[in-house]
Amino acid sequence: MNIKRYMIKDTNESVLKKLDPDESGDFKSKEEAEAKMAKLKERLAELQDILFAQKKHSLLVILQGMDSSGKDGTVKHIFSGINPQGFMVTSFKKPSLEEEAHDFLWRVHMKTPPKGYIAAFNRSHYEDVLVPRVHGNLKKEEMKRRFRYIREFEAMLAEEGTTIIKLFLHISKDKQLEKIQERLQDPTKHWKFDASDLQERQYWDDYQDAYDDVFKETSINTAPWYWIPANHRWYRNYLALAIVVKTLEGLDLSYPKLDTPTPDISKLISPRH
Amino acid sequence: MNIKRYMIKDTNESVLKKLDPDESGDFKSKEEAEAKMAKLKERLAELQDILFAQKKHSLLVILQGMDSSGKDGTVKHIFSGINPQGFMVTSFKKPSLEEEAHDFLWRVHMKTPPKGYIAAFNRSHYEDVLVPRVHGNLKKEEMKRRFRYIREFEAMLAEEGTTIIKLFLHISKDKQLEKIQERLQDPTKHWKFDASDLQERQYWDDYQDAYDDVFKETSINTAPWYWIPANHRWYRNYLALAIVVKTLEGLDLSYPKLDTPTPDISKLISPRH
Repeated sequence: MNIKRYMIKDTNESVLKKLDPDESGDFKSKEEAEAKMAKLKERLAELQDILFAQKKHSLLVILQGMDSSGKDGTVKHIFSGINPQGFMVTSFKKPSLEEEAHDFLWRVHMKTPPKGYIAAFNRSHYEDVLVPRVHGNLKKEEMKRRFRYIREFEAMLAEEGTTIIKLFLHISKDKQLEKIQERLQDPTKHWKFDASDLQERQYWDDYQDAYDDVFKETSINTAPWYWIPANHRWYRNYLALAIVVKTLEGLDLSYPKLDTPTPDISKLISPRH
Repeated sequence: MNIKRYMIKDTNESVLKKLDPDESGDFKSKEEAEAKMAKLKERLAELQDILFAQKKHSLLVILQGMDSSGKDGTVKHIFSGINPQGFMVTSFKKPSLEEEAHDFLWRVHMKTPPKGYIAAFNRSHYEDVLVPRVHGNLKKEEMKRRFRYIREFEAMLAEEGTTIIKLFLHISKDKQLEKIQERLQDPTKHWKFDASDLQERQYWDDYQDAYDDVFKETSINTAPWYWIPANHRWYRNYLALAIVVKTLEGLDLSYPKLDTPTPDISKLISPRH
């Protein structure tokens, strides 16, 4: 699996239109992917254990995508199975009054992973450039400034030991409708239905353009964007997991050694034992 | 499985001495427990999904126990497999300067679960009564006050929708030594070794007495203590999971219904579709 193929690089022109949300790589079947996925999940658990023990690096996985693109499902499928003690996930919703009273990076900064941890962002500071771009409530210079802040913020995190990967879950407009219908028909999914998703759906093309802008402005080497074909859930999950595992394998992970000579336990044991 | 058997009730006398950390219930073998455990994990994932959808209740699981009693392992084994998006775990270590400048409930209150979530505390505000009790650096009246604050705090949480269970992982003193030796011998566990654990081990009996005090002062109906025989990892994991599942089953969990009439999607679809 060459994950580089999914890294977004040609950002001078609009890229989204050329990417096929139906893609499913070289797999012949879902079953084949699921078998490979089980192995990758074991590998992730191993790597996370070393990451946590070593406390040298951290990993931040940012998930973005249109409504119903499967951000929740991806978090659930790729990260259930790892040790929850070394993992944190934050879903960024509409900002609270307190959050709104700060700069837009304030609330996300608070949730970045400390050394040893993996963090996932379900939506992120990117909403604060996407939404204003679509609804036109920020001036052009303000938008430019925000993009600069994002680049500088992410570069700082990366230099200080946080590896960042940004995953864009790419679904088609038809697929979104299908998923909304699913939510309305299945009583165990009613709670996921939000009428405002249908409102935002009217701005589909504007959001696609806004994402193209995001890729252009924030595809930096230290914090790359990947696109994930997301019409097939199983391929979406497989690919996102593969990128996470490959990224961790690129770090110099190893269990730390004892920093003191092995103590002579017999001496230290309580005399009362 | 009658979990009530493990609820600590007779708190007028010292209970810990009478409890056998080697106990393994009615199981004939580890394999038998593991098969049952796999089913319980599926059940937990189902219940958590409804809890998260309904956003009416939350669950707080407090884990306490001597060093090496398996708090980390218990969190890992019982909660890996659930949707990490509805779960949060906090390990409370030595307080930071900022934390120390507040009352001892400040940092734990910040980490209590919002509605819909399960939270685990790996150590907790109970350290702030155990350690002073053992090392004698709080006056009797101050200790009494802290116990009262804890009871009132937990009762408030419970009344406001947070179900609390408190698990004491009970190991024997010999078992602790075995586990410390394991950490020194296995290079993938070196990082878990902490020389101060050996220091605290000298106060083993004092800690057991301190826990008896804790049970006496804070076994309230709304936030019960359970003891978990923890010399056998597999039984420890099984029992802790069983208590969590049983507790969730006692709540009135159900998927919420659509609170508006099902919208006519065809009307709402963007004309550009």
